Amino acid sequence: MTRSLVTGLTIMWLLVGSWASNIQAAADREKLLTEPGVYGTFAVFALNNEEWAKQDPATRILRLTSLKGVVEQHQEHVIIDLYLLRGLSDQGDLLFRIHAAELYETQEFLLDLKSSQFGKHLKTVGVMHGLTKKPVYVPGFPDQMKDDLNTISDPGRKPYAVVIPIRKSAEWWGLDQEKRAAMMQEHTAATLPYVKTVKRKLYHSSGLDDQDFIAYFETSKLEDFHNLVLSLEQVQEFRYTRRFGHPIVLGTMKSLDEVVELLAQ
Amino acid sequence: MTRSLVTGLTIMWLLVGSWASNIQAAADREKLLTEPGVYGTFAVFALNNEEWAKQDPATRILRLTSLKGVVEQHQEHVIIDLYLLRGLSDQGDLLFRIHAAELYETQEFLLDLKSSQFGKHLKTVGVMHGLTKKPVYVPGFPDQMKDDLNTISDPGRKPYAVVIPIRKSAEWWGLDQEKRAAMMQEHTAATLPYVKTVKRKLYHSSGLDDQDFIAYFETSKLEDFHNLVLSLEQVQEFRYTRRFGHPIVLGTMKSLDEVVELLAQ
Amino acid sequence: MTRSLVTGLTIMWLLVGSWASNIQAAADREKLLTEPGVYGTFAVFALNNEEWAKQDPATRILRLTSLKGVVEQHQEHVIIDLYLLRGLSDQGDLLFRIHAAELYETQEFLLDLKSSQFGKHLKTVGVMHGLTKKPVYVPGFPDQMKDDLNTISDPGRKPYAVVIPIRKSAEWWGLDQEKRAAMMQEHTAATLPYVKTVKRKLYHSSGLDDQDFIAYFETSKLEDFHNLVLSLEQVQEFRYTRRFGHPIVLGTMKSLDEVVELLAQ
Amino acid sequence: MTRSLVTGLTIMWLLVGSWASNIQAAADREKLLTEPGVYGTFAVFALNNEEWAKQDPATRILRLTSLKGVVEQHQEHVIIDLYLLRGLSDQGDLLFRIHAAELYETQEFLLDLKSSQFGKHLKTVGVMHGLTKKPVYVPGFPDQMKDDLNTISDPGRKPYAVVIPIRKSAEWWGLDQEKRAAMMQEHTAATLPYVKTVKRKLYHSSGLDDQDFIAYFETSKLEDFHNLVLSLEQVQEFRYTRRFGHPIVLGTMKSLDEVVELLAQ
Amino acid sequence: MTRSLVTGLTIMWLLVGSWASNIQAAADREKLLTEPGVYGTFAVFALNNEEWAKQDPATRILRLTSLKGVVEQHQEHVIIDLYLLRGLSDQGDLLFRIHAAELYETQEFLLDLKSSQFGKHLKTVGVMHGLTKKPVYVPGFPDQMKDDLNTISDPGRKPYAVVIPIRKSAEWWGLDQEKRAAMMQEHTAATLPYVKTVKRKLYHSSGLDDQDFIAYFETSKLEDFHNLVLSLEQVQEFRYTRRFGHPIVLGTMKSLDEVVELLAQ
Repeated sequence: MTRSLVTGLTIMWLLVGSWASNIQAAADREKLLTEPGVYGTFAVFALNNEEWAKQDPATRILRLTSLKGVVEQHQEHVIIDLYLLRGLSDQGDLLFRIHAAELYETQEFLLDLKSSQFGKHLKTVGVMHGLTKKPVYVPGFPDQMKDDLNTISDPGRKPYAVVIPIRKSAEWWGLDQEKRAAMMQEHTAATLPYVKTVKRKLYHSSGLDDQDFIAYFETSKLEDFHNLVLSLEQVQEFRYTRRFGHPIVLGTMKSLDEVVELLAQ
Repeated sequence: MTRSLVTGLTIMWLLVGSWASNIQAAADREKLLTEPGVYGTFAVFALNNEEWAKQDPATRILRLTSLKGVVEQHQEHVIIDLYLLRGLSDQGDLLFRIHAAELYETQEFLLDLKSSQFGKHLKTVGVMHGLTKKPVYVPGFPDQMKDDLNTISDPGRKPYAVVIPIRKSAEWWGLDQEKRAAMMQEHTAATLPYVKTVKRKLYHSSGLDDQDFIAYFETSKLEDFHNLVLSLEQVQEFRYTRRFGHPIVLGTMKSLDEVVELLAQ
Repeated sequence: MTRSLVTGLTIMWLLVGSWASNIQAAADREKLLTEPGVYGTFAVFALNNEEWAKQDPATRILRLTSLKGVVEQHQEHVIIDLYLLRGLSDQGDLLFRIHAAELYETQEFLLDLKSSQFGKHLKTVGVMHGLTKKPVYVPGFPDQMKDDLNTISDPGRKPYAVVIPIRKSAEWWGLDQEKRAAMMQEHTAATLPYVKTVKRKLYHSSGLDDQDFIAYFETSKLEDFHNLVLSLEQVQEFRYTRRFGHPIVLGTMKSLDEVVELLAQ
Repeated sequence: MTRSLVTGLTIMWLLVGSWASNIQAAADREKLLTEPGVYGTFAVFALNNEEWAKQDPATRILRLTSLKGVVEQHQEHVIIDLYLLRGLSDQGDLLFRIHAAELYETQEFLLDLKSSQFGKHLKTVGVMHGLTKKPVYVPGFPDQMKDDLNTISDPGRKPYAVVIPIRKSAEWWGLDQEKRAAMMQEHTAATLPYVKTVKRKLYHSSGLDDQDFIAYFETSKLEDFHNLVLSLEQVQEFRYTRRFGHPIVLGTMKSLDEVVELLAQ
Repeated sequence: MTRSLVTGLTIMWLLVGSWASNIQAAADREKLLTEPGVYGTFAVFALNNEEWAKQDPATRILRLTSLKGVVEQHQEHVIIDLYLLRGLSDQGDLLFRIHAAELYETQEFLLDLKSSQFGKHLKTVGVMHGLTKKPVYVPGFPDQMKDDLNTISDPGRKPYAVVIPIRKSAEWWGLDQEKRAAMMQEHTAATLPYVKTVKRKLYHSSGLDDQDFIAYFETSKLEDFHNLVLSLEQVQEFRYTRRFGHPIVLGTMKSLDEVVELLAQ
């Protein structure tokens, strides 16, 4: 019954939503996801499980509708991707990845999320910011990555997503640019065997947060991803890594409707 | 009275359950427990003691029945082992070890567990993932280990289980394959005196979580296990270990029925 | 409705407030913000979200009025700047920067804040103290910085603020004064390209708190700030840094009225 | 009034208890406290102060009676020593030291403790396990220590107890046996001046928990104990110590009746 | 109204208290504050702000009276100094410094404090113990310090107090006594310019707690104290410091009556 209520709700949203605007939104999304100078925020929230379990089904759906409302309202300005951590992570239940041209737009979305009827059940566990930049070390590589990121993933099988904050040592930053470039080339070469099954995106964080980089991965083949990380641990550049993870955040990509349906139960 | 109620409940389950399907399940279990490419998840939960103590016996049994229901429902897809940490660990009360061909199956089980009537009393304390792999360093060793793991443990005396997350240093990964193999041979030799009393299983975690390996041990002789660890601390490979435990999780293996009976009290 | 209520409230405050005294206050503010020997305190508070969400709009406004009252009452003695962390930081919701000639004046303000009707919804997350000092290393630089800090920021666009606690290594303090001065000159040179878009202010903390310095930044161009930090990570002085951030606190500058309006919703 | 109620309760216990069985228990206790191969568990609990303060005196006494009941019931299998941390430690309020031939017996006691009417007010703060072993390094020393441990402490003046978890570095374990033995002899020599006023007992923990050793001390002269630790910090072996304390747990030895009386107030 | 009630209460206390006994107490205080072999305990408590705010003024005063009662009752055996951290520290609200000839006397006071009507609103945040000792390194210095500590501070202006836990490295303790003495002389020389404005007292903690020393400072001139710490960071001995602060606790000295009056509001 709960499930059919949610489905009905979803259909209603489909009818009411002005889908024409979504064509423009798709173009903007493309731009924000591929261009440099875009801010990426990873926000992890924990759902107050005991409180949430006490709500009756109708109240839950009402509150999840407020989640949908806030996301719809802001997605003209920011791109919001949603991941389910629950069950796979001890960090929290939901991960929002938000891309925006300016960080205050991300703040406005998250303020409205927290003020919403759903938001009062959420506890902010972690927020990390990064910035997309033009590749500096290996100019040939990123086009391939960009193409790859544009590949539409199989709709029937949502991939896993992994977020790894990285901090380099002072020694790394003290190396001259050439040495760093040479090591990054070795690093990049190690990733090539996995370029088709593991998508990567890099965010630069120095000063914005307590890491230098946020490495974001998407894959349907977790074993490939694991082997990729193993390869990266074996190149020389890894010796200049002071923090790798802590925490590594692993979840599954979900549509807003899927999350609503799962949490309504 | 509580105890006889639980026993009655157990008998009912025995009658209702379709045990034919369990023969196939046993074969699948065998496969998931011995083959490479299988995901192992260790999930530690704390029971909200104060809330749980407030429930009357009938409610507790009803909620524990929901635990049984969720486990039964998912055990066609995933293998679920249960350990009691309560009393022996400050990490939490229950440890679930889940083996699955794909991590999303593990997630589906844990989502249902958390949404269940019992699950709302649980707090997720820690979740760690690893992957079984074909042995690379010492091909002769693992067969013995595999045989050993297949040995049916004494039903009258459930052994202890210990879970140790391990992270190697960047120096370790920077060593060439041969040097690492030589050190692993010394490591393996140190374990041989304990191969009959201490069962071991290794999970590879790099990228999936904040450790490189999860070492899992089962034993009825904890002193042998302690001496095994002492031996492993004395080989050269140990100097390349950056994290060993933190936390070490120690508990006792329990059947689902034993856990139900213990928590019903 | 809530919004118009708040606006009405704001107008009332504007009328009642004796604005003549504000001219003197502005002069004192100037002095406290530019002179050495002034104490700067950064206090981060988290709003109890679940409790706050339960209050009806009228109660919220009443409590936010108590916040305004406390700030107005103390701003003759201390300078209070307010930043919204909510959404951008996992540290807390509000950051107060307080400048005072004596730290007990800061304590008196924060005591009254915590005792106020609004304060009982606040949890103290972090408090850091520092002291402004005459520049010792590079006497030529600070005038430019001072001028820069006096520039009135664009009223239509409130900048971002970032707070970075820094601890130097024992090796740093063990270096002779000349070597340190030479490295600080290299450090300062690295900041020059960003002097127009990123404002900086340094507080000395050794003994007052668990860091040696608090570096405070204001900017409308976060990317410039990020590039500034990248440059600072590449100079020799950075190798003598034991702590950089942990946490880095990032928020947006807000007027008291803006904060009241946002939290009233 | 509360005090006389407790005293009456104590007398009742004295009359009802079958003290003959205690003679055998004393012999078993002696064995468990002096022989190798015995498991020692240190479990720290915090009392939920706010909840406890709300109970009326009669309820408190009823709950403390359940504590007495659980301890009495298990002391045929395990040896239970009780320490009051409250006031002296920020770790918790009570420390139980439990000696058992098998760790599952300790678990059974702690399970019953947590399920008791008193136990629901307790939060498990820390649990550490170790194993007693025959001395390997300096065979002459332990007899003296054993004799010393058998000395009945002054009944009128309960001594202080200090628990220090210790982890050695990988370098320590990599040293050959002879070098370690030589350093341990220097270590032992440093303890000799304090052997009469400071009792010591060593538990081996590698693999059982996140330390290699648990050092347990009893003394009425804390200053002597402090000087003993100072001496131990100055021998060569201390340079191979990676963790010393963190936390050091300090409390006072109390009989079960004393604890009951104190907490009844 | 609340304030006058408190004042009345204070006067009543003044009349009822037998002030003759205070003359002896002052002599004992002098002895405990200046002699070696005295235990100093620093206990930090956080007030449950939300609960406290809910109490009506009369209840608050009743509870604060219980605080006064406990302090008065124990001050024949232990010396109790009180500091207000609230507003200046994220560690807690109140710091008690307790001097006692034996640590169990300190425990008795803190047990009664926690059992009092006021104590149930307190959460123990941190407890540190140390021991006063005869100076070993630089015999000439401490007399001056002792004189200084006896100087009655300006009653109109309560000074700031700072508590810094310090742990030395294993290398420090491994140095021979002469080298350490030479470095301590350099350390002491660095403090001389501040001896008149910054009072210091040293407690030895090895074994009693997770630090080697507790350095306690009192000053009305925080800038002098900051410069003193800066000087101490520049001497050679500082390179052998493994922990300095973490946390540094900063507050203002308050009389019991001042604390009562502040918390009654």
